[in-house]
Amino acid sequence: MSGIQDRSQWLPISAAERPFYAGVDLGGTNIKAGLVDNRGRTLAFHTEPTHAARGPEDAAARMGRAVKTLCEQLGIGTDDLPRVGLGTPGPQDLRTGVIIKAGNLPGWDRFPIRDRVAFHCGRKVTYSNDANAAAYGEYWVGGAQNCQSLVLLTLGTGVGGGIIVEDLSIDGAHSHGSECGHMLVDPTENARLCPCGQRGHLEAYASATSLKALAREALTRATAGSLFQAVAAGEELTPILISREAAAGDPLAMDLILEAGRWLGIGVVSLMHTIDPEIVLIGGAMTFGGEQAAVGRAFIERIRGEVRSRTFPLLAEKTQIRFASLGGDAGYIGAAGLARAAERHRAS
Amino acid sequence: MSGIQDRSQWLPISAAERPFYAGVDLGGTNIKAGLVDNRGRTLAFHTEPTHAARGPEDAAARMGRAVKTLCEQLGIGTDDLPRVGLGTPGPQDLRTGVIIKAGNLPGWDRFPIRDRVAFHCGRKVTYSNDANAAAYGEYWVGGAQNCQSLVLLTLGTGVGGGIIVEDLSIDGAHSHGSECGHMLVDPTENARLCPCGQRGHLEAYASATSLKALAREALTRATAGSLFQAVAAGEELTPILISREAAAGDPLAMDLILEAGRWLGIGVVSLMHTIDPEIVLIGGAMTFGGEQAAVGRAFIERIRGEVRSRTFPLLAEKTQIRFASLGGDAGYIGAAGLARAAERHRAS
Repeated sequence: MSGIQDRSQWLPISAAERPFYAGVDLGGTNIKAGLVDNRGRTLAFHTEPTHAARGPEDAAARMGRAVKTLCEQLGIGTDDLPRVGLGTPGPQDLRTGVIIKAGNLPGWDRFPIRDRVAFHCGRKVTYSNDANAAAYGEYWVGGAQNCQSLVLLTLGTGVGGGIIVEDLSIDGAHSHGSECGHMLVDPTENARLCPCGQRGHLEAYASATSLKALAREALTRATAGSLFQAVAAGEELTPILISREAAAGDPLAMDLILEAGRWLGIGVVSLMHTIDPEIVLIGGAMTFGGEQAAVGRAFIERIRGEVRSRTFPLLAEKTQIRFASLGGDAGYIGAAGLARAAERHRAS
Repeated sequence: MSGIQDRSQWLPISAAERPFYAGVDLGGTNIKAGLVDNRGRTLAFHTEPTHAARGPEDAAARMGRAVKTLCEQLGIGTDDLPRVGLGTPGPQDLRTGVIIKAGNLPGWDRFPIRDRVAFHCGRKVTYSNDANAAAYGEYWVGGAQNCQSLVLLTLGTGVGGGIIVEDLSIDGAHSHGSECGHMLVDPTENARLCPCGQRGHLEAYASATSLKALAREALTRATAGSLFQAVAAGEELTPILISREAAAGDPLAMDLILEAGRWLGIGVVSLMHTIDPEIVLIGGAMTFGGEQAAVGRAFIERIRGEVRSRTFPLLAEKTQIRFASLGGDAGYIGAAGLARAAERHRAS
């Protein structure tokens, strides 16, 4: 996490480049809203709990108010901030601006989130998938800055995906573009079940949820090891625990993490042979400490190794595979960036 | 095949819309060159053997001459036809305009085809992959006309791919975009070997080459059936023979064709969950007579069925899966279309 909640990292408005954009990242747990300048630098940030159970209109009102309040605090009028970007979990209908059915937002089905947020903040709203917004953030000012194209895989409860090619977010004809977590990586009959109900999707092998499930299965066959002992002693089986025990040298824990990396590599190969992005970024909560940590390094090296053994030498050599750099800020920054892209496209 | 070699189907120049574009489709066997108008309608067409063994400079000179001759015949000057599109097999370096190493063109490695054709025809040349050019042709005036996005799979000796999203051809950061034949559909250790040297790629299961190989293996285990008898009687084992015997009711022949369709469906699912195109088109030589033929219908229905059982209901319902419509004309028409797109992009 880049910790943009730390005010000392905000850009003073006197140094900022107009126009400004607001980005709102709606998650099942938290709402994040930020103002950024024309170069993607954060001017102000706000976060609050989603309170999903209060319903979508309540949240839409609070998102709109957050944007308005941030603008007021900085003295920014509508002319200086013409458009707001909003990213939400899918499935969604991007054309009509409606959440179709989000797992983390029960009871929000068919809510016209784009237009309700627009009503409450008094601005036009550009609507996107949260993972695509995060990808655009990394593309604009993050780990894929200066790249022409990018695939982002975000590993958390599920596996999110975002694909950007030459400033275009691959949203899809039916708002299902870039859902890389649902690539078919295992076509066999007994393939693992994905939360979406289909078998063999990448998400069934490389999310925090699947890592926990695979660990639970492996532990029923284990009799020793520090992960086994920790769980036997009552510790909750989480990716953090698995990562900790892998770092402490438990081979089962490390194997589980590397197996997730292997499946990610399999998915990345197909993405390299269809999108052929300049860079592949791995983000989200389940990155095992990133390049700074031994487990994170082993994890990403496993992805790279699987790719090397399965793709053309030129692609293996030239395609960068790295951890994302914006952490939890990617979503609102990218949503703002997509609002900027829409505004510039309109003007051209 | 739409048979545009038949002059009666050409548009008279008096009815054509300026500017005009030329498209050249270089294959291992034939060169095809055509002039099209601003709406993608063919004004003139020429084809001749590639004569690959004579070397690339000889072919480049003949391609350039073909464009010049067609223009002269119609009285079209450089101002009216500012740019030529050229599609060739990969792998290639699209940025530098070089063929890296094409299997069907031995000895052509590292030849600067784009600039040599430009020299010989006296026009700027837009260079693309042949399958991407064919996809652009279908997108512009073929089976995906009026669609915002398209995936084309061309089934022949190999499995080619083309992806178009909102007028953008997905060429990739390293000229390996849209190589859908090299999607990883079978990650198991004993997966079939692809001609590229890697295991488990779609091309190893759904090309004419793989269909023949799979048929050969199946026939070693067979003892009866009309395909078995035909081959035992000395007929050459080809996709055409397999299709003929499938049409005649031989279950082994039909199973082989449907199994290729099943693997295509598996690849298409991953494309639907990443590109989410409006339409998926199946083209190339190995389409078993298309929708007009019982075998062709069974084949595409098998692809659709596999997709239905593996994707989200909304996508299964909305995404069209059909045969391509331009046949062997897609390549030069699409190459001309990409030249037009480059010219318009330059002007904007």
